[in-house]
Amino acid sequence: MNELIEKGKKAKAAAAKLALLSTQKKNDALERIAAALCENADYIIGQNEIDMENGRKNNMRDTLLDRLRLDRARIEAMAEGIRQIAMLPNPIGETVEQIVRPNGLEIGKKRVPLGVIGIIYEARPNVTADAAALCVKAGNAVILRGGKEAKNSNLAIVKIMQSAGAEAGLPDGSILLVEDTSRESAVALMKLNEYLDVIIPRGGAGLIRSVVENATVPAIETGTGNCHVYVDADADLDMAKKIVLNAKTSRPGVCNAEEKLLVHRAAAEKFLPDMCAALSQSGVEIRGDEATCALYKDAVPATEEDWGTEYLDMIIGIKVVKDIDEAIAHINKYNSKHSEAIVTENYKNARRFLNEIDAAAVYVNASTRFTDGFEFGFGAEIGISTQKVHARGPMGLKELTTTKYVIYGNGQTRG
Amino acid sequence: MNELIEKGKKAKAAAAKLALLSTQKKNDALERIAAALCENADYIIGQNEIDMENGRKNNMRDTLLDRLRLDRARIEAMAEGIRQIAMLPNPIGETVEQIVRPNGLEIGKKRVPLGVIGIIYEARPNVTADAAALCVKAGNAVILRGGKEAKNSNLAIVKIMQSAGAEAGLPDGSILLVEDTSRESAVALMKLNEYLDVIIPRGGAGLIRSVVENATVPAIETGTGNCHVYVDADADLDMAKKIVLNAKTSRPGVCNAEEKLLVHRAAAEKFLPDMCAALSQSGVEIRGDEATCALYKDAVPATEEDWGTEYLDMIIGIKVVKDIDEAIAHINKYNSKHSEAIVTENYKNARRFLNEIDAAAVYVNASTRFTDGFEFGFGAEIGISTQKVHARGPMGLKELTTTKYVIYGNGQTRG
Repeated sequence: MNELIEKGKKAKAAAAKLALLSTQKKNDALERIAAALCENADYIIGQNEIDMENGRKNNMRDTLLDRLRLDRARIEAMAEGIRQIAMLPNPIGETVEQIVRPNGLEIGKKRVPLGVIGIIYEARPNVTADAAALCVKAGNAVILRGGKEAKNSNLAIVKIMQSAGAEAGLPDGSILLVEDTSRESAVALMKLNEYLDVIIPRGGAGLIRSVVENATVPAIETGTGNCHVYVDADADLDMAKKIVLNAKTSRPGVCNAEEKLLVHRAAAEKFLPDMCAALSQSGVEIRGDEATCALYKDAVPATEEDWGTEYLDMIIGIKVVKDIDEAIAHINKYNSKHSEAIVTENYKNARRFLNEIDAAAVYVNASTRFTDGFEFGFGAEIGISTQKVHARGPMGLKELTTTKYVIYGNGQTRG
Repeated sequence: MNELIEKGKKAKAAAAKLALLSTQKKNDALERIAAALCENADYIIGQNEIDMENGRKNNMRDTLLDRLRLDRARIEAMAEGIRQIAMLPNPIGETVEQIVRPNGLEIGKKRVPLGVIGIIYEARPNVTADAAALCVKAGNAVILRGGKEAKNSNLAIVKIMQSAGAEAGLPDGSILLVEDTSRESAVALMKLNEYLDVIIPRGGAGLIRSVVENATVPAIETGTGNCHVYVDADADLDMAKKIVLNAKTSRPGVCNAEEKLLVHRAAAEKFLPDMCAALSQSGVEIRGDEATCALYKDAVPATEEDWGTEYLDMIIGIKVVKDIDEAIAHINKYNSKHSEAIVTENYKNARRFLNEIDAAAVYVNASTRFTDGFEFGFGAEIGISTQKVHARGPMGLKELTTTKYVIYGNGQTRG
């Protein structure tokens, strides 16, 4: 893959310079890029129209066509996102710890960029601008590999980002797009160890699986969510109803949406008929275990497969459990380690749930929908890690950095 | 691989319990294990003798036979290492950050164990005890896969750790050894994603490469070092000589040893003849560029291959550079991102070296040999990461943990 090797070299050279760029220079470049995207909106929309036309020819589904489509408002929103990233604090250069050893060595742990980041993503062209801006703000060069459906849109966005960036002094090679959109180019990028420091997939379960299976570059698994809300015996049932409705219906297509509801048997009779009616009324299909189906006649019987499925749709799986032990065991067996919530007024059960559930985010008395870089106060996010290595949960600018030990001596040698 | 699946299940179940174990319980178990290793030294030595006998039959090199050999003193040292790990602070449970969001959500970031750690290592059986103790102290279950040369020794050590651990209340499955020492079992362990959270190789370059190429479980690349010392024009040459001798000769077979010496041309004539003579006198073979060979007649001409080679031996590559730019460019091109040092009295050059060199540890006026968990004050180490993701540099107990967001609400839903 000559294209990848050539771009890898360029990105690596750019990363060395980007790591030393001042906050002001990086922010100026991002501001200039944001302005250029707005100024060139017509050009981007024209190129996007080619992708839209190809999509229609290939019978792309309406929801996907909508995600692909760029108009002036969406380009303005893209630019606004970049301006917000420019305003965030620069994570680079901070000394996280500094100690003095008995021999007088002063050892500091300093935050530095990762280097070159590869991002593999699917149809939405706004990821191009968003991911590139986050990587650059954290001092990293980025090699983007978008889907073939958005090829012309991505190319247009990257061209504008590159030329505006160059005007503002961003090193050549800071933002690169792989133009070969074959499956082979994605796999080759996952194995580009000589040039990439990390690879982050943004997309559906198939893409994530492909990265986990093929990548030899360190990869960060993101964004699959089979999230549960457990309503305990001692729950405030009004609160539980609000949380479940919010977690399930506010945006069912995202990874922090609730997919399963567990209810303590002591609360089931009082809670479930009303809860199920409210969910049905909101258009949610209910798949229940035996106890749920007995309490709510319109529920469809759930199968074993349901418990492990991320629907990303207006469907919920409901199960009645005999106690918190069963709830915890069920969640730890079937969850995707993303976000899990308990609704309870019981101190001991709240603590047990927080300690014993294995997930990136565990909640007491709040909706799982809060697992998000913006809601956590990071100002932006590149994705939500569901693995334990490097970063866990929403990944903001800090998660796009690493550290380096910086050691000041005066002639120390080791005995 | 039925053995791996069975052990994966056991380890995962143990990890859930280990994560909740009190500091006291973990420490008691480690103390009990240390005592049991000493009490059963004869049994371990007997099993080790079988491995030694096989090694001799297979014409194992003397240095490797020495690494394989266990005697009473080495077993006492192993036990002492475990007692020291027991005395280290427990990294688990600490809240690293806690914030309150405008909507009242309290979001804490809490340190928790990684879960199940796989360790693949080679001939030294003391790694068995050491790695297991570190993993357990950080609340993780561990699946060990040692080399076939040490099979009987490893099995003996693990049996004793398991039974002593069980007596002290360590969950069954906390410490497991893969008994199948075929290459296939190592590769299968690298792909055991359902049960393993991370895999750490401890061994030579071949093992590390195999893990990078084959692992689908997140892996941490460790321990290859092509470390440089750069003697600047403004160096204190006496200090430089001491640092170079220490970095090269104090323990040439380890990854933080110096492999290359770069010297500013303004210092070369005064520094190199004496430095080379001292190195030669210590038994170091000198491979020099043209300028070095002109200044020291016993130097062998270095080839291009030398600059990228980790000798792990009494050999050094020496190059004269025209300025600090050439030194930085050379190091960033050939180094293994481990440890790099400058010797200088020049403020600007010291800062440039610290900022521009891409490595886990960068030093001013000290020996590269300090890159080590003990020397950094971590009390122990599982290895030295040369990648940028998750951990960089010496990895102690903290690097065997991850975090979890723990969120306290009072009914919050997302708008």
